[in-house]
Amino acid sequence: MTGTAVDTAPFYCPIESAVHPEAEEAERRALAWLSHSGLCRTPADLARCAGSRSAEFYARFAPNADLDRLWPASLWVYWGFAFDDARCDEGPLATDPAAFATMAYSVQRALETPGPLHCADPYAAALHEIGELFRAAAGPVQNRRFEQAHRGWLTGVQWQIGNRATGRMPDLDAYLTMRLHSAGGEPTYAMLEIANGLDVPDREMDSPAVRALTEMAILVASLDNDRHSYTKETEHCPTEQNAVNVFQVHHGCSLRQARDETIALRDAVLERFLVLRDRVTPRAGASLRHYLTDLGHGIRGNIEWALRVPRYHAPDGTARTAPAHIPAQASADHWADAPRSGSHDPRRLPSVAWWWSDDLVL
Amino acid sequence: MTGTAVDTAPFYCPIESAVHPEAEEAERRALAWLSHSGLCRTPADLARCAGSRSAEFYARFAPNADLDRLWPASLWVYWGFAFDDARCDEGPLATDPAAFATMAYSVQRALETPGPLHCADPYAAALHEIGELFRAAAGPVQNRRFEQAHRGWLTGVQWQIGNRATGRMPDLDAYLTMRLHSAGGEPTYAMLEIANGLDVPDREMDSPAVRALTEMAILVASLDNDRHSYTKETEHCPTEQNAVNVFQVHHGCSLRQARDETIALRDAVLERFLVLRDRVTPRAGASLRHYLTDLGHGIRGNIEWALRVPRYHAPDGTARTAPAHIPAQASADHWADAPRSGSHDPRRLPSVAWWWSDDLVL
Repeated sequence: MTGTAVDTAPFYCPIESAVHPEAEEAERRALAWLSHSGLCRTPADLARCAGSRSAEFYARFAPNADLDRLWPASLWVYWGFAFDDARCDEGPLATDPAAFATMAYSVQRALETPGPLHCADPYAAALHEIGELFRAAAGPVQNRRFEQAHRGWLTGVQWQIGNRATGRMPDLDAYLTMRLHSAGGEPTYAMLEIANGLDVPDREMDSPAVRALTEMAILVASLDNDRHSYTKETEHCPTEQNAVNVFQVHHGCSLRQARDETIALRDAVLERFLVLRDRVTPRAGASLRHYLTDLGHGIRGNIEWALRVPRYHAPDGTARTAPAHIPAQASADHWADAPRSGSHDPRRLPSVAWWWSDDLVL
Repeated sequence: MTGTAVDTAPFYCPIESAVHPEAEEAERRALAWLSHSGLCRTPADLARCAGSRSAEFYARFAPNADLDRLWPASLWVYWGFAFDDARCDEGPLATDPAAFATMAYSVQRALETPGPLHCADPYAAALHEIGELFRAAAGPVQNRRFEQAHRGWLTGVQWQIGNRATGRMPDLDAYLTMRLHSAGGEPTYAMLEIANGLDVPDREMDSPAVRALTEMAILVASLDNDRHSYTKETEHCPTEQNAVNVFQVHHGCSLRQARDETIALRDAVLERFLVLRDRVTPRAGASLRHYLTDLGHGIRGNIEWALRVPRYHAPDGTARTAPAHIPAQASADHWADAPRSGSHDPRRLPSVAWWWSDDLVL
């Protein structure tokens, strides 16, 4: 299995590991809610949802959140994985961009519509209810940011589905632009404010520096996900769009070279993230500092979650029992001490070169 | 010509008429810029651009803007009409949702990328340059709002293209949700802050009341556009998605009934807009008051612009000369004294019923 070989390299990630102490309670509450939602009509549905360990996932992103805000945030992660499987990466809409658009932007409106709403579509209905929980937990600014991020995610998936339908493998620059949206990192990180009760001033949040940091965190986690899910995806479809395949198709790389280039590119972005974050943090207010810290927790937590989640590691992707214990961090052999260097300088990629601009200050 | 008969009913619009006193100078500057851009390679291209009278259009939206900010804002309107014609409503992408997604979200990234950027696509290149002008004219918060609104517009167009490709006519609720985005009202109104140098606090701008007011202004103008462009569109394609056709297809209306129902629905939304705006305005800060006033100017100005714009009224849609004179307002016989009533209560439409909630306060 060549796919498996791709996944054995250690991760460079000089960011502290952290997990919320009440992750298991968050999981219990979230699964109880899901078991009464239209998303999980059978025990098998619930086991598949549980197999994403979404509460653990988000407990690593937001290790200092209020429990009462953490479990609703984790609900959206469960929802997102279920939606991904049913309507984005698999299922009849995965290659039907017209049908996806109709469905996706109706679902988006269900999220954005406040108050009682009847939705025939169970995914829209569940998302609307999650939106209601978010509106109860956080203010309009935070909810608007989440909604915008959510729409951004759907545009990335739309792009990906169009490429899949037409057999197109995007070039590296286009792939990174698409991946910044398609991987779902935007809504995931936009929930940090909701889960933590933060209120980052708009002048900070919308500054080019914080936008760049958010995008870099999204891209690092997305490229790590490309590695984590490479085996799973290639078993389904060897032409699936991911960074390893982009390097093979457009740059004549072997599988091993493509894996190494993906890692080097990701490491360069992480290095820049760390440098820029160090520069921005001293000028940041309390909410922004917390947000920037958790951007890093998300990068680290995404790796640690992925290393053991049933979604990737169990034969059928499901979890039939609650986790007995969530370890604080993965063992030492999963980690690399230094970044790799590669032959593709990300500063030459038009869509992301601006992340290295000296003008990025708060 | 049944289409023409549809367009003769007067408009209910108890909002004062206004136009920027330097509209013609804004047009001169904008056309000079466009004549050196990749969008207008021939005199015919420039005449077609000029035929949209986009500077007059935006001079009616923002009658008190700074001239130095007004003409860059009008540039985006010229760009938007050209993009619409080339890649949304006509041209090979108009029925190709996969190709549209790849193109549209690459163009979106060109807008969002700050600093020097080479774009092979002339529409992306021009949009990037307009984005650079906006970043010079306004702060990151206003630019981020515009970018988000711009992405929202593209999602509406994406949905519309998917429907067109599959011959689907959305039902009324879905149509309104789609139209809130597809008509381009979001980025048009998001430029009010840029053109006027406003800075509406996020707690005001993201409040449900202001969101509802913005959406209502967008929908009123969009439904008016459905009437203005009905003849043009039906000559091209009788199955084009617009409100009149939605009422005919899904509610068994005759053409005249469908026209009347469209007007009544639009009038009900405008009535609600005026009531809610009156309730919100006394609590609004100075920037928000200006913004809310200009939401109304946009509704009124959109009608007055459409009544005489070469894009709709000249045989080939082009303008070969600058406007000799922009009249302050249209003649009295274009206006209705009272709203119409219809048989479709918008408060029963799930996606917009919340606009009538008593909870909408600032």
